[in-house]
Amino acid sequence: MPTIEDVARHAGLSRTTVSRVINNQPYVCEEKRQRVLSSMGDLGYVPNSSARRLRNKKTETIAVLLPRITNPFFSHMMEAMEKKASEWGYQVIVCQTHYSADKEIDYLELLRKKQVDGLIMTSVHNDWTKIEEYLASGPIVLCNENMEEANTAIIHIDQKQAAYDATMHLVEQGCKKLAFLCGNTESSITRARRSGFMKALHNRGVAFVEHDSFQEAMDVDNGREILSIIQEEDPEIDGIFTGSDEVAAGIIYEAIQRGISIPEDLAVVGFDNQTISMLMNPSISTVEQPIVDMANKSVEVLIQHIEQHLRQKREEYVFDHTLQQRNSTMRNIAVPM
Amino acid sequence: MPTIEDVARHAGLSRTTVSRVINNQPYVCEEKRQRVLSSMGDLGYVPNSSARRLRNKKTETIAVLLPRITNPFFSHMMEAMEKKASEWGYQVIVCQTHYSADKEIDYLELLRKKQVDGLIMTSVHNDWTKIEEYLASGPIVLCNENMEEANTAIIHIDQKQAAYDATMHLVEQGCKKLAFLCGNTESSITRARRSGFMKALHNRGVAFVEHDSFQEAMDVDNGREILSIIQEEDPEIDGIFTGSDEVAAGIIYEAIQRGISIPEDLAVVGFDNQTISMLMNPSISTVEQPIVDMANKSVEVLIQHIEQHLRQKREEYVFDHTLQQRNSTMRNIAVPM
Repeated sequence: MPTIEDVARHAGLSRTTVSRVINNQPYVCEEKRQRVLSSMGDLGYVPNSSARRLRNKKTETIAVLLPRITNPFFSHMMEAMEKKASEWGYQVIVCQTHYSADKEIDYLELLRKKQVDGLIMTSVHNDWTKIEEYLASGPIVLCNENMEEANTAIIHIDQKQAAYDATMHLVEQGCKKLAFLCGNTESSITRARRSGFMKALHNRGVAFVEHDSFQEAMDVDNGREILSIIQEEDPEIDGIFTGSDEVAAGIIYEAIQRGISIPEDLAVVGFDNQTISMLMNPSISTVEQPIVDMANKSVEVLIQHIEQHLRQKREEYVFDHTLQQRNSTMRNIAVPM
Repeated sequence: MPTIEDVARHAGLSRTTVSRVINNQPYVCEEKRQRVLSSMGDLGYVPNSSARRLRNKKTETIAVLLPRITNPFFSHMMEAMEKKASEWGYQVIVCQTHYSADKEIDYLELLRKKQVDGLIMTSVHNDWTKIEEYLASGPIVLCNENMEEANTAIIHIDQKQAAYDATMHLVEQGCKKLAFLCGNTESSITRARRSGFMKALHNRGVAFVEHDSFQEAMDVDNGREILSIIQEEDPEIDGIFTGSDEVAAGIIYEAIQRGISIPEDLAVVGFDNQTISMLMNPSISTVEQPIVDMANKSVEVLIQHIEQHLRQKREEYVFDHTLQQRNSTMRNIAVPM
């Protein structure tokens, strides 16, 4: 493969001049620039990107940490982030934490080892004090999670209000005994949603049931298991806040197998307005988040921080959510499928 | 930030010795190695990975090219590839081509510019002669697509046989007039599936219908549109090979809205056995591919090529598919949901 020296020899110019052209530096007249470019073309010279990146001290790569790419919420968010980053000439590395605090630290190390210029966390599995140490190595943006103590850019919806709205909707449909399901119990999202759920219950004096299996509910299979447990242990539950369209779909699927009427016997509300929530029969009432807008904002803020070396400080961007009312909850009012 | 010189000074050793320790090279006695490591710890020295990778001439990164991460077939394949790669200490960059030949070339350039050590293509949008040029820069593995002329490792199922099996199943359920749907018309997968579909028709003398809208059918919305077109233009179609669970789900969703009975009026077969195919009501008959096994094999073969500098030659790994018979096609025989 031709080297930078070969290009210099071919063009009859110094190595420094060739290097200046490759790195888009000033002080090279147009005529010499053209000679270098034409020699590079003739010889098929390709600048080594690791070398170039080393000189620039930039990798032009960002990492996105997410629990699992197979959850459509994260794959759609990832798709939008990748599109936006590529507009800015940045690559995106996908890092799946599989909900592990250790794996999260492994990926944060990418920042310290200068393998990425910045990092977006869509879920958080360590205390902020641990994560904060990595801010010295480069910018970190939180998208989706909101940690009270985080001194960085945070993009999210008001999870408490969203859970309040969804729960009030169940109550208004006549539900008397509710269940609150959640994914990662440690997450800020779970805490916020639980507090919105409880607020709605207190306002209306409605009962609720706790069960170990209602925690760590993340996918279709979890939803199916939970419906079985409810049927055996607490069949009086007539409304479920799931926090997940996948879990809601699993509950509804299993309910149909058992001849339980949705929403008459059991009303179910999902979260995220994934495609599945429209496709299920009955369709799933759900909270819609503006995923693409949130993804775009996260990438823009991160790249601004990378390129302008801004000081990290707390900046919050709160996006609006919408409650989509569909057949899995609508007992009183007929809605078009 | 401390430099390699600072570490050498602190440890009272030469820069060469420090460099040898960082790069795990021989000829350093244990006592000196410990002094270097302890100085690195005291000073908080972190080897710059770009520099290290430059020296190793390796990025320990592989790129996976896929059309869109929001298709569950690709997100599940990606998840498995990332898991397997991380066992080998490799990072994975996700590259979404959005079915564009130009974007595909952009990402192939990652190999030529030494930004990745190897590349897996799960779909192909250029002629092999164009892609072949990049083999000089590093190994490329095809997973999912099978190009006849490709002189590289190829991991796939027998798409022709899979389409034949699915079509024969529709015929055996009594379908008299079939439609063949496909995604990218240029792809080797479409050609193989079409030939399997036609073979089944010829064997049984069944009719079929062509329509422009039956090509480039990729997602739920495409499926909904196609059902509308069939109803208006060719309502006698009573069986559809979709090539996609998402398209099949869209067709079934729209059929339910219009009061069309699935499978009695219209039998529909999907592809990939995604979660949605079980959740839909009626559930979707579909062809299952062993995604995780195929993903694992692709990563293993690629990394062997990277690490052992093997000569690229054609090696084919053909995995078995299975037809899952569910309610969207089963007219005669009752199956458990």
